[in-house]
Amino acid sequence: MAPYGSSLRTLPRRQVHRSRRELGDGLNQSGRTLARMSTEVQDLGRRARDASRVLATASTAVKDDALLAAADLLADRSSELLDANTADVETAQAGGMEPAPLDRLRLTGARIEAMATGLRQVAGLADPVGEVLDGNRRPNGLEIQRVRVPLGVVAVIYENRPNVTSDAAGICLKAGNAALLRGSSTALRSNQAIAAMLRDGVAKAGLPADAVLLVEDTSHETAVEFMQLEDYVDCLIPRGGPSLIRSIRENATVPVIIDGDGNCHVYVDAAADLDEALDIVVNSKTNRPGVCNAAESLVIHESVADVFVPRIGQALADAGVELLGDDGARARFAMGVATDDDYATEFLALKMTVAVVPSLDAAIAHVNRFGSGHTEAIVTRDLDTARKFTREADAAVIIVNASTRFTDGERFGFGAEIGISTQKLHARGPMGLRELTTYKYLVWGDGHVVS
Amino acid sequence: MAPYGSSLRTLPRRQVHRSRRELGDGLNQSGRTLARMSTEVQDLGRRARDASRVLATASTAVKDDALLAAADLLADRSSELLDANTADVETAQAGGMEPAPLDRLRLTGARIEAMATGLRQVAGLADPVGEVLDGNRRPNGLEIQRVRVPLGVVAVIYENRPNVTSDAAGICLKAGNAALLRGSSTALRSNQAIAAMLRDGVAKAGLPADAVLLVEDTSHETAVEFMQLEDYVDCLIPRGGPSLIRSIRENATVPVIIDGDGNCHVYVDAAADLDEALDIVVNSKTNRPGVCNAAESLVIHESVADVFVPRIGQALADAGVELLGDDGARARFAMGVATDDDYATEFLALKMTVAVVPSLDAAIAHVNRFGSGHTEAIVTRDLDTARKFTREADAAVIIVNASTRFTDGERFGFGAEIGISTQKLHARGPMGLRELTTYKYLVWGDGHVVS
Repeated sequence: MAPYGSSLRTLPRRQVHRSRRELGDGLNQSGRTLARMSTEVQDLGRRARDASRVLATASTAVKDDALLAAADLLADRSSELLDANTADVETAQAGGMEPAPLDRLRLTGARIEAMATGLRQVAGLADPVGEVLDGNRRPNGLEIQRVRVPLGVVAVIYENRPNVTSDAAGICLKAGNAALLRGSSTALRSNQAIAAMLRDGVAKAGLPADAVLLVEDTSHETAVEFMQLEDYVDCLIPRGGPSLIRSIRENATVPVIIDGDGNCHVYVDAAADLDEALDIVVNSKTNRPGVCNAAESLVIHESVADVFVPRIGQALADAGVELLGDDGARARFAMGVATDDDYATEFLALKMTVAVVPSLDAAIAHVNRFGSGHTEAIVTRDLDTARKFTREADAAVIIVNASTRFTDGERFGFGAEIGISTQKLHARGPMGLRELTTYKYLVWGDGHVVS
Repeated sequence: MAPYGSSLRTLPRRQVHRSRRELGDGLNQSGRTLARMSTEVQDLGRRARDASRVLATASTAVKDDALLAAADLLADRSSELLDANTADVETAQAGGMEPAPLDRLRLTGARIEAMATGLRQVAGLADPVGEVLDGNRRPNGLEIQRVRVPLGVVAVIYENRPNVTSDAAGICLKAGNAALLRGSSTALRSNQAIAAMLRDGVAKAGLPADAVLLVEDTSHETAVEFMQLEDYVDCLIPRGGPSLIRSIRENATVPVIIDGDGNCHVYVDAAADLDEALDIVVNSKTNRPGVCNAAESLVIHESVADVFVPRIGQALADAGVELLGDDGARARFAMGVATDDDYATEFLALKMTVAVVPSLDAAIAHVNRFGSGHTEAIVTRDLDTARKFTREADAAVIIVNASTRFTDGERFGFGAEIGISTQKLHARGPMGLRELTTYKYLVWGDGHVVS
């Protein structure tokens, strides 16, 4: 293992290349305000970078020891954590927080045990670091290997869920990354308690405690600084709603993986088994309406619309789903009018749009126009139709004859998930340990020079 | 092949999710000015998106036909292109452009032939699209495949080199992407001529001409708009110097791959073969000093410094290289004083910093502090030392006993290169066809629902 400290490591890498100095008075040509970096956030970034150098070469056994020690500490010191959480919850209640977010904020013995179990499960997963992805020998004899390595420092910004502190840190650590975390002010005391226990566990295993760092200043200014820590952060993952994603898009200057909306469709084709279609649509919509892999839109081929629209309309209405449709849907079952805005909305509720289309091409065009690139499902028994849909529908996950709810790291067999990417760069779809790595090329020569 | 047009495709995807409307008056909370999108740039984005849908499912044969037809047109209509280029060169000369950029702007018959040859070579490369990366069958019987697909719309912003128009479009096209290009105002007429020929070639093969689109308004405002085309651009690649990269960091809201600085080191270890080290250092520094894979810094273990510093100092001085060093280097060969800023600078010239270090750990710390994450080389005969350096030096490419100049898509066997990434997200190191793709998951079920 590498030594933890070195006086040569006390200044940021790429100090001159990318320093804030280049940016003059903090305003660029387009007038954007760049964060004036405070000592605190910069210092946390530097500490995370230093820790990441050690983690990058840590053995699997040591990382697993750290995860297991952290899990034990969460369980052993759960009363301490519950006290901190109670203080957060009481403050939030006094401030008038709504019941749903209050429930997300609240920890219980069972929820703490689930966090500990999550860390133990991550310890049991295979280590992605060190995998040789490919390689070859060049005609000149140079040997090249592409090897999987950690990203380095993974920053996670998230909202009112203290369990993310533990879940995100655990998956980052197993993949060899330092986790730089920023939660919400409402969960600060809970997050501080969890981070302290994780840090103790990591240190117990002989790794630097700074493998897990929490930004404790939760002001808006530090959030922007956090998104602009170019000298230290290799990847920023936001976990939260549309306003957080918008702020990331507007402010982040570090590389980002967007865990975005899920405006998912189910397309019921002319050649669908309609009993199967009924089950899949109802499951996709109603199994858990508030999550990103729930379906928001139903697209039906007009050749089965006379039969299927009334059947599915009744089934969804019976399940309490409000429907909004186009003329073709409304002619066959009573529902409200869907606007383009409705078709483009992720309801996250018992509400669904319906469109009747004249062809597979029109279905694909509808999906590609309104979808958010998350998950698109088709129900069909026709092979050509299924293959065309998988090729032309543009989303992270294309599902044939199954519920959209299967887009999930656990259900994909990843063992752990840090989010679902709706962008195309780096990771697409569910993100597990592998998606928290990058690669480096190793080139082995024998005195080779370029002529 | 998919139909080219559909009335359903005329509005941007994710229209509501990500529309500029959300951004209110064009100023976000941190005061950044967001581009007010003009019809022209938005329209080009939409057209590129539409074309990308067709390209994504185009066969290899059709894409190759398009590349070959474009190559033929460049050759056949070279006099037309030379006329356009002459007009650009004359305007630039009249405006007082320096000889070096003027040379980069100038086309000749040989340079046009090289562009055509480049397109033909790309046509001869294997198509990355459709590769099944991995897959498995879940315990519940769902079958999952991860399949390589094009990114979609790749935007490239570049400076005063008209050949980039052809090179970038060719590699994007082969990987199934639409290329949305923005060159410099100085090369506008040349770029227009090249883009017109490429578009004609693409159309001849039966693909949409909008597979290649050039932004002809080269004002600063449209550059910012170009960097914020979130509804249409899947990946933005800047090809240019530090001021372009800085502008991208400050303004881009679309996913970016940074083709950044190369502050590359050669570390000459205690166990180095010093004859080999001499050749490698001289080659890394002087073979082509103006490119990103040239070495900028030399790090020498102190146990060989008495012998090696004078030898390499003399050899580099003989080659016209100006040296700047620390005390350990200056005590052994006459050279200027290197500051931290010098160590962090990519000179791109016959200039090099020298540092003498007491240990391998100190060498790695120096490299990780000042390097830009591009290429780091070590010269050693010791196995443990080589393995430790490859693990702990943090860069896209780690080279053992060979010149830093080998970091190059062609020399890696990629056949074509669109840049060298110094970020860790998505692509790292030389970027070829594979790096211009992403993946999608296909999930095949049999009526599966989540319980």
